[in-house]
Amino acid sequence: MNKWTVLACSAVLAGCTTTQVQQDVAVKNVIFMIGDGMGPAFVTAHRYDVAGQPGNAVVPTIFDELMVGAAATYPNDDTWVTDSAASATALASGVKSYNGAIGVDGDKLPVRTMLEQAREAGLSTGVVATSQVNHATPAGFVANVASRRMYDVIAEQYVNKRIADKTMLDLMIGGGQTYFSREKGGLADQLKELGFEQAWDMAQMQQLQSLPAMALMAEKGMPYAIDTEHPDRLKLMTDKALELLSTKEEGFFLMVEGSLIDWCGHGNDIRCALGEMHDFAGAIESAKAFVDQNPDTLLVITADHSTGGLTLGAGGEYQWLPTVVNQVERTASFIAEAMVEAKTQPVEAIWSQYAKLELSEADYAELEAARSVQLEGESKYALSDAISKQVAKYSYTGWTTSGHTGVDVNVMAYGAGAEAFIGYQNNTDIAKKIMGLMQGD
Amino acid sequence: MNKWTVLACSAVLAGCTTTQVQQDVAVKNVIFMIGDGMGPAFVTAHRYDVAGQPGNAVVPTIFDELMVGAAATYPNDDTWVTDSAASATALASGVKSYNGAIGVDGDKLPVRTMLEQAREAGLSTGVVATSQVNHATPAGFVANVASRRMYDVIAEQYVNKRIADKTMLDLMIGGGQTYFSREKGGLADQLKELGFEQAWDMAQMQQLQSLPAMALMAEKGMPYAIDTEHPDRLKLMTDKALELLSTKEEGFFLMVEGSLIDWCGHGNDIRCALGEMHDFAGAIESAKAFVDQNPDTLLVITADHSTGGLTLGAGGEYQWLPTVVNQVERTASFIAEAMVEAKTQPVEAIWSQYAKLELSEADYAELEAARSVQLEGESKYALSDAISKQVAKYSYTGWTTSGHTGVDVNVMAYGAGAEAFIGYQNNTDIAKKIMGLMQGD
Repeated sequence: MNKWTVLACSAVLAGCTTTQVQQDVAVKNVIFMIGDGMGPAFVTAHRYDVAGQPGNAVVPTIFDELMVGAAATYPNDDTWVTDSAASATALASGVKSYNGAIGVDGDKLPVRTMLEQAREAGLSTGVVATSQVNHATPAGFVANVASRRMYDVIAEQYVNKRIADKTMLDLMIGGGQTYFSREKGGLADQLKELGFEQAWDMAQMQQLQSLPAMALMAEKGMPYAIDTEHPDRLKLMTDKALELLSTKEEGFFLMVEGSLIDWCGHGNDIRCALGEMHDFAGAIESAKAFVDQNPDTLLVITADHSTGGLTLGAGGEYQWLPTVVNQVERTASFIAEAMVEAKTQPVEAIWSQYAKLELSEADYAELEAARSVQLEGESKYALSDAISKQVAKYSYTGWTTSGHTGVDVNVMAYGAGAEAFIGYQNNTDIAKKIMGLMQGD
Repeated sequence: MNKWTVLACSAVLAGCTTTQVQQDVAVKNVIFMIGDGMGPAFVTAHRYDVAGQPGNAVVPTIFDELMVGAAATYPNDDTWVTDSAASATALASGVKSYNGAIGVDGDKLPVRTMLEQAREAGLSTGVVATSQVNHATPAGFVANVASRRMYDVIAEQYVNKRIADKTMLDLMIGGGQTYFSREKGGLADQLKELGFEQAWDMAQMQQLQSLPAMALMAEKGMPYAIDTEHPDRLKLMTDKALELLSTKEEGFFLMVEGSLIDWCGHGNDIRCALGEMHDFAGAIESAKAFVDQNPDTLLVITADHSTGGLTLGAGGEYQWLPTVVNQVERTASFIAEAMVEAKTQPVEAIWSQYAKLELSEADYAELEAARSVQLEGESKYALSDAISKQVAKYSYTGWTTSGHTGVDVNVMAYGAGAEAFIGYQNNTDIAKKIMGLMQGD
């Protein structure tokens, strides 16, 4: 129960109790969406990206419409800066743990997650991610292992861990073919034996008919939104997940992750990040529309941490230019790969295929130098880093790190029980509130 | 009226209307507090600064307790990044304007501010700031000029502008002696003629007895919190302002600015910023205590923008170390001045007087080099910049700019009408809501 509800309540009717309000909030379904690495600057950036030309009227985005508060993200060690594993564990279970921990506490003992609780209560369950489905964030809801790097053990738990005699998941949509072998007796094959309908690309995913089901559409993570023919892939995946899960009468728990916002942040690639934010926003629009049709659903959206130390404005300039960012049409890693494949062809020729942003002679020389380093095998990321730096420079985008930062993240909520998330909270409080609302507290 | 109130209301009592709730929220007094430059990372940083050693239990700060939403800060030009003048105008009047604008719109025409509205309604009025009282943020509430740089014109309006035959302010507390001459016929002298009780240092300020009153305690901005014997100076100034203003039965409007958070941000000096945040937090504690005693008071706290591109974590490190920051006991500008005054004495000797943080030989050599540049008159800030960089380096604090950035800022609210500020809003909406609540909408 939240102070805001109580406040309004007592103002209206002296005799009303918190219990009376709470009983009217029956939560049947939960949709929990996590923008990996989506610190507050990413959310602001998305608004001005959508608004287009500076000076135009600015329209509140879906993030703005649903914004209710903020959350601290720190892990239980001495850093104040979390990784995605510790924060996934916190958001899934309400327990702070160490960086690297997947569904285990500081003593490496399994914690009970909201997805397990949903399972125990007989709900259907699903995870959707643009990374491999066994990456840290979804894994924190499903598995219990001492290290996020144990991808194979995590995948094995997706198949063999049981709650109430059932697999953890009725549905998984994302990347990760590498970890779920289709060979006889392999994990994908085992899931097929268990009745899982299977899809291996976006077209097949959209044809899935019933639960249990799985779609693994890339070896590991899926391609970046703006580099594919499906820049709205996460929205399409979310639509399918809601279609399938809502056929079950007992209700469902669905976790949706905009996984690659974080990866763009690690690469300090603002164009990449804006593309992922746009797709994540579309997925949230779908989820909100579902809540409008099914008001007994709770939708909560947050981030696990911020990535890259993104700032809108840099180098003393009082401006940030999304219109410059949008003169680039592919991610830095995509353009870098094309330049490397082109070998001796001038980088300028490749650049102009994918970007309208004009660079100087000195800029192109920097890209040529970075390509040389990469062609000599001395670095995997020299060229994409050099490209990201050009876009940052001309758009006045600031970055401070290839890692994460500790700033609080936004909390958005909508539907049944949403008012419980108003204000500041610890990331563990988000889990506790959702778990409480799921069991009718 | 806010969707959250309506939601809770309709859940409790089918027949209740928004009007019923609203009528219970009578706003007599308004306290509007602005942390200049206080982006979300500053608020998070303050929490971990207070929490002390990493790993300790983290206690929600006063910002956390009162946090209800966020606000966009962009000006009406094509930059997305505001200065303190445009944002002060937006927060004071609900009108977006250009960077540099003080209480005027895009056509340089005067706008009506909430302080003017308070005056028209017969309320007492005051501004408290750690900058000069005629600096951009307070000026945006009081004056109407085309450029923030017109300090003398602004000061003149503080004395000679009239609303309902009264000066704009019953109370001003801060710095700014330079702009209010005490000579016969000067602005300070004119205010004395108008009956203003006057104070010129902290001790005199604490002795002020009645309104109208003014305390100008520095030539321009006041010294940084941690460099003075009054690290809680803003709290003391706020206490005095509330004491004086609350003697008036008709109610009051008070603007309090934590001005120097911004200046520390411009200098990329994290130790400086944490000191200012601590003092601003104390001032908010005082304001909250006043609301607890006077529940017909609305307290709103926000920032005008973020400064410096602060990030908690930098350079690929997954940690931020406030304990390292706190091994430094003075601002970079204070230590730099001491080093410059010491001329040929080794910088290490001066450093160790004010900091327990151990630097390397190479670090000291950098400081020596910066001091030489400064002693030769080639730069005013080379040494303080070099000091700030050392503290940032060892604490993993990131900075991207000497200017401002565009990220949304936090919104805190408490007391009568506070629920109106839940969620995302434009900075102009904050003004419109306060002005609406003041007139009983």
